Amino acid sequence: MNLFEKHKETIETAIKALHERTFFAHYPEHPKAYAEDADTKGREAYVARLGKNFDLLLQSGETWLGDEESPYTQEALGIKYPASDEETLIAHAKKGADAWRKASPEVRVGILLESLDRFQSRFFENAYATMHTTGQGYMMAFQASGPHAADRALEALVAGYEELKRFPAEATWVKPMGKYEIKLKKSWRAVPKGIALIIGCSTFPTWNSLPGLYASLITGNPALVKPHPGAILPIALVVAEIQQVLQENGFDPHICQLAVDSYSSPNTKKLAEHRDVKIIDYTGNSAFGNYLETLHGKSVFTEKTGVNSILIDSTDDVDSMIQNISFSLLLYSGQMCTAPQNYYIPEGGIETKDGHISYGDLIAKLIEAINGLALNPKVGPFVLGAIQNLDTAKRLSDSAKLSGSRVLLESQAIENPMFKNARTATPLLLEVDATQHDLFSQELFGPIAFIIKVKDIHQGLAIATDLGKKYGAMSCGAYTTNQETKEKIMDEMALAGTPVSFNLAGGIYINQTASFSDFHGTGGNPSANASFTNPEYIVKRFTWVGFREPA
Amino acid sequence: MNLFEKHKETIETAIKALHERTFFAHYPEHPKAYAEDADTKGREAYVARLGKNFDLLLQSGETWLGDEESPYTQEALGIKYPASDEETLIAHAKKGADAWRKASPEVRVGILLESLDRFQSRFFENAYATMHTTGQGYMMAFQASGPHAADRALEALVAGYEELKRFPAEATWVKPMGKYEIKLKKSWRAVPKGIALIIGCSTFPTWNSLPGLYASLITGNPALVKPHPGAILPIALVVAEIQQVLQENGFDPHICQLAVDSYSSPNTKKLAEHRDVKIIDYTGNSAFGNYLETLHGKSVFTEKTGVNSILIDSTDDVDSMIQNISFSLLLYSGQMCTAPQNYYIPEGGIETKDGHISYGDLIAKLIEAINGLALNPKVGPFVLGAIQNLDTAKRLSDSAKLSGSRVLLESQAIENPMFKNARTATPLLLEVDATQHDLFSQELFGPIAFIIKVKDIHQGLAIATDLGKKYGAMSCGAYTTNQETKEKIMDEMALAGTPVSFNLAGGIYINQTASFSDFHGTGGNPSANASFTNPEYIVKRFTWVGFREPA
Repeated sequence: MNLFEKHKETIETAIKALHERTFFAHYPEHPKAYAEDADTKGREAYVARLGKNFDLLLQSGETWLGDEESPYTQEALGIKYPASDEETLIAHAKKGADAWRKASPEVRVGILLESLDRFQSRFFENAYATMHTTGQGYMMAFQASGPHAADRALEALVAGYEELKRFPAEATWVKPMGKYEIKLKKSWRAVPKGIALIIGCSTFPTWNSLPGLYASLITGNPALVKPHPGAILPIALVVAEIQQVLQENGFDPHICQLAVDSYSSPNTKKLAEHRDVKIIDYTGNSAFGNYLETLHGKSVFTEKTGVNSILIDSTDDVDSMIQNISFSLLLYSGQMCTAPQNYYIPEGGIETKDGHISYGDLIAKLIEAINGLALNPKVGPFVLGAIQNLDTAKRLSDSAKLSGSRVLLESQAIENPMFKNARTATPLLLEVDATQHDLFSQELFGPIAFIIKVKDIHQGLAIATDLGKKYGAMSCGAYTTNQETKEKIMDEMALAGTPVSFNLAGGIYINQTASFSDFHGTGGNPSANASFTNPEYIVKRFTWVGFREPA
Repeated sequence: MNLFEKHKETIETAIKALHERTFFAHYPEHPKAYAEDADTKGREAYVARLGKNFDLLLQSGETWLGDEESPYTQEALGIKYPASDEETLIAHAKKGADAWRKASPEVRVGILLESLDRFQSRFFENAYATMHTTGQGYMMAFQASGPHAADRALEALVAGYEELKRFPAEATWVKPMGKYEIKLKKSWRAVPKGIALIIGCSTFPTWNSLPGLYASLITGNPALVKPHPGAILPIALVVAEIQQVLQENGFDPHICQLAVDSYSSPNTKKLAEHRDVKIIDYTGNSAFGNYLETLHGKSVFTEKTGVNSILIDSTDDVDSMIQNISFSLLLYSGQMCTAPQNYYIPEGGIETKDGHISYGDLIAKLIEAINGLALNPKVGPFVLGAIQNLDTAKRLSDSAKLSGSRVLLESQAIENPMFKNARTATPLLLEVDATQHDLFSQELFGPIAFIIKVKDIHQGLAIATDLGKKYGAMSCGAYTTNQETKEKIMDEMALAGTPVSFNLAGGIYINQTASFSDFHGTGGNPSANASFTNPEYIVKRFTWVGFREPA
């Protein structure tokens, strides 16, 4: 059975899910769904790689590079990956390019889906690799970097497959001309744009990179995966699986290459500016993302920085709300592009089912909830994880001294029961006035939040949408029991290109977006010009070219 | 009956056609399909507008502008259009914008389809308006500017409608969590990007502008139509119909405004750079198109210049081939972005069903065919039409003296039986060697062609694809009876983003692309970053924004 036949049902089900946008997940997200010894074996596999050359890739290199360091042990992983200069990588990518673009969508989708299934067998190894590069807690490292990333990849993959099949490969065109007719045989080819470059980030090495990688590959482009020097291993595991399946099926494994660099000798600009690189996927800071967007004649997909807001107007259940927004702030120490930063709270307090709650009481509840989670040794260490890098740690200590703001809650290190050297930090809570835009209009990546005292939610909404349009926003959480206010928020946030989660409570948070249902990013504000996975995310990676002749 | 119900069948049929890509035309293309007196009435309506203020628009202006001049009479039309500065136009566009974006796709598609049907009643008036602004011959002015343009608009319109309906407006998302479930109500909105600017050209004022206009309007954006100062009337007629239908249905007519300027005081850059203009459609020269493409944060769709080629290898019917490629060169005096310019002919001649034909004999046949058409008083004037502007006339006379080339056939003026002052020119044919890239690598817009002597078709193909990748190409015509050569041409032209017409004979020419079947432009080379109408042409005009809340 060929790989397309093997995965046909999954492909069909996934395409259906793409259009229904109800719950769909192909890869089970809970560790308990896997074999009992999978965790142990995964950890062992991870440990066995430490201090060695990474030997799973079917590509060679002129040197071996690797700068990864665990935020939990603050020690180098010592893993080295094969590295080549940009001209060698490009030359190798071209070797297999013709065969790959000429392969049918069925062949490509079969191979790529097979690679995701193979990656599944490494979800536990990947969880440890992700923990010790990103600093994510174990559960997030398992879920976000494993099944959730694979499902987002699957989403992009089948969206690409669907788009390639959207128009017929050929058709007969008959134009009536009165007494005669003109009859043409026509055909169309989906032509890949060229070499794709996927530039990874240090916090979500697979989740943020797999959609672009699979979208470019399914549409026939060879791919260069340029991981962040601080988080290589997780995506190296995926690239290895792709290369393996490519080779088994008679394709050159260099169709998908790892393109590692180091902090001291970065290769990203050289690759991005190379004339043969036609597609770029990027997650990272806005300055570099904006530069990439100016590169002429390339399809550039960016996810940059933004300032996310929580808008509070009224609620039926104040404690659930407080619990929910506190957890959102804690999750992975705020090192998520969807984490809330700006909490707009009415100075006169809010109405709840149980009566009025003053501004002061709300703040007190919030601080109590944050402490209750962060300082609980059974919760804090696992939800906060560790701080990925020293820049974030420095940003946090600098922010505590931010002139003009008032510290409501200081950040502190907590003990991680498993890793005594873990770089940890509980959230810093700063209070500012609504007029102090300069303090809270930029993203302060990490566990830093502003309580912004506003007249009412309408003032908060006006500021938040203004900042979103100017500086970007990936998410918004809003609490209101008023239908009119809700509609106003939806309308104005829509114009700011910002998705809104209303009245979230319980085990669902604004930080999370679900594949096959939530678009991640909208492309409608400066935080991202791309969206996982809307049609634009696919169609800019290839062009339709037609041919015709008399039939 | 509302307008959606009225046009529902057309919408459904057209969407089906978009995916089948067999022949589909909604608007009859032949004048004889219309009422007997339609032509007379159309000409009278056109004549009645000369020397007057254009009074069909539902917008006012601070001044009246109009620089149009007929290439047939070389006299000013004297029609003036209401004009406003860019801030006034933008402010007016915003007035109706909220109502338009909040209208359902059904309401918008109904209104826009109705406007196209109303435009149909002006096809004859529009034919004369097009003749006397562009210089097109009557039949082309009727077809290309009327039914063909309306069908391309319909294509973009229903492609937009389909894309807006591609995802559900709402869905319930239920995630099983073992003993409980998380249930969210989700909804999505297609949010328009902002004000759209459509920048027209002087040769195809409706055909090249209507797709972008209708694509932007259906996706909820208000539109500013900036015609070329030399060709306003045809598209002013369309804008007038759109405004009328908008007003009849309770919308502000300023959702679609004419934004005229003059040669002495152009407004295009001011409009294009305006912060509220988020979408730009453009047809014209590459220098300005490339500048527009660099404007950050805007969706820019361009059709610029390119160099189209005819590749000759072998043929079953040499006379049909010669007749076909000669006609392609004559049609509207080569003033088409799809007109062939570079004819690659093997120095050793070619094989035909009737034996070998030498290079010299092929050239002789081509010259004979061109003269036979151009100098035939019953054919030449009507196929050639007139030269739109003095720049093209000057380019033609300059090219006759092009250093390094040899003149095979001189251009000459011919008499037009109806317009003694018509600015006419038969094709100029220049012979160059394959090495003289600098002579033929740029578009020389107008009736100018190069005969490029090549070793064989493979050398021609190599040069043509190289030039296509560097400078762009909108079309290619190839003649070969060899299957292997054909596949090679398809593959290499695909990589150069250039559609190929093989072995065309009879009444179909490489210059023509059919709506609902041929993509016009591919976006795959520098001649155009846009394609009528692939999905990319639609999806970059709006973003998907999602909302969710506990169900």
